[in-house]
Amino acid sequence: MSFEYLIDPAHGPQWKGALPGKPVPYVLRRGEGEHAMLFTDLFTVLLSGDETENQFGIIVSDSPAGDVIPTHSHNATHETFYVIEGKVRLFFEDPDGQKQSQLLTPGDFGYVPAGFAHAYKIEEAARLMGTLSGGFERFFQHMGTPTDSTSPDQPPFIPDFPRMQAAAQQHNMQFMPEYRWPDA
Amino acid sequence: MSFEYLIDPAHGPQWKGALPGKPVPYVLRRGEGEHAMLFTDLFTVLLSGDETENQFGIIVSDSPAGDVIPTHSHNATHETFYVIEGKVRLFFEDPDGQKQSQLLTPGDFGYVPAGFAHAYKIEEAARLMGTLSGGFERFFQHMGTPTDSTSPDQPPFIPDFPRMQAAAQQHNMQFMPEYRWPDA
Repeated sequence: MSFEYLIDPAHGPQWKGALPGKPVPYVLRRGEGEHAMLFTDLFTVLLSGDETENQFGIIVSDSPAGDVIPTHSHNATHETFYVIEGKVRLFFEDPDGQKQSQLLTPGDFGYVPAGFAHAYKIEEAARLMGTLSGGFERFFQHMGTPTDSTSPDQPPFIPDFPRMQAAAQQHNMQFMPEYRWPDA
Repeated sequence: MSFEYLIDPAHGPQWKGALPGKPVPYVLRRGEGEHAMLFTDLFTVLLSGDETENQFGIIVSDSPAGDVIPTHSHNATHETFYVIEGKVRLFFEDPDGQKQSQLLTPGDFGYVPAGFAHAYKIEEAARLMGTLSGGFERFFQHMGTPTDSTSPDQPPFIPDFPRMQAAAQQHNMQFMPEYRWPDA
């Protein structure tokens, strides 16, 4: 197994500085941004709260088929799911507490505001774009690990439990391992 | 010329209610949302400040080749430009006051925060996604006109000058007709 995708902590990721860190104009080419690997997914931050006075951040995720993002909810983070490529089944709790699921294909859009349990499953290898309440985009870096590879086709990064707990606490969210969905 | 794309003001657009108007989960299929025609562009609101506690809104625009969005700036609105399809030249002022331009192709991303002059030109028929500070997504409806057609291939809607002025004032932005770009 090759580990050249990992960052040498002494030097930090080469993507450092890809985002300006303050509200000024900039452009990123496809594949550019701040990359982090979390489980089998490559998360790329295109915009952070640092550029938007903490209004919103934007991520792109590349995920292999079969991948499941387990049920969780954010106490103060709104989140969108726009399918660029692939197929994604989004599971979410509706305002009546009913459990819903919808299969999203390219061009489809899902929205889950703060406080609603949700999960998703990658039915076909997918690229998703998400807009999040500002600051939450760093969650994937804090629970995952930085990488300079732009490919999701690399060994997964499995955080240990204390790392997961710390990232969840820092970003005011919780995993809900007991939660079940009818269609899952 | 056929006008069936126009809304009967007595009944309002059929898309009314496409968005929940409060922070609850929902899904839109490709092409769904609140459509408005402004000049030659079809703007579709996927998410508004009403769903996000006014944090952010999301639009998709469909624009024909040759179209130009004239130079303007928003006093309090941050805006992103993600190219889903086509080619778009983004013009923007940088922090040093220099005039920049970049040709964006699918997967490329541009960001222009509040206070920076910008414009864009559609080099090849394009679909763009934009995230905006909450509330500004309604600008396109206020300056444009609602439509139920999901195609940009319809007669343009040219607002009169008082309508343009009113929408600009309501949304705290200004057009800059004297501004020139080197590459335009």
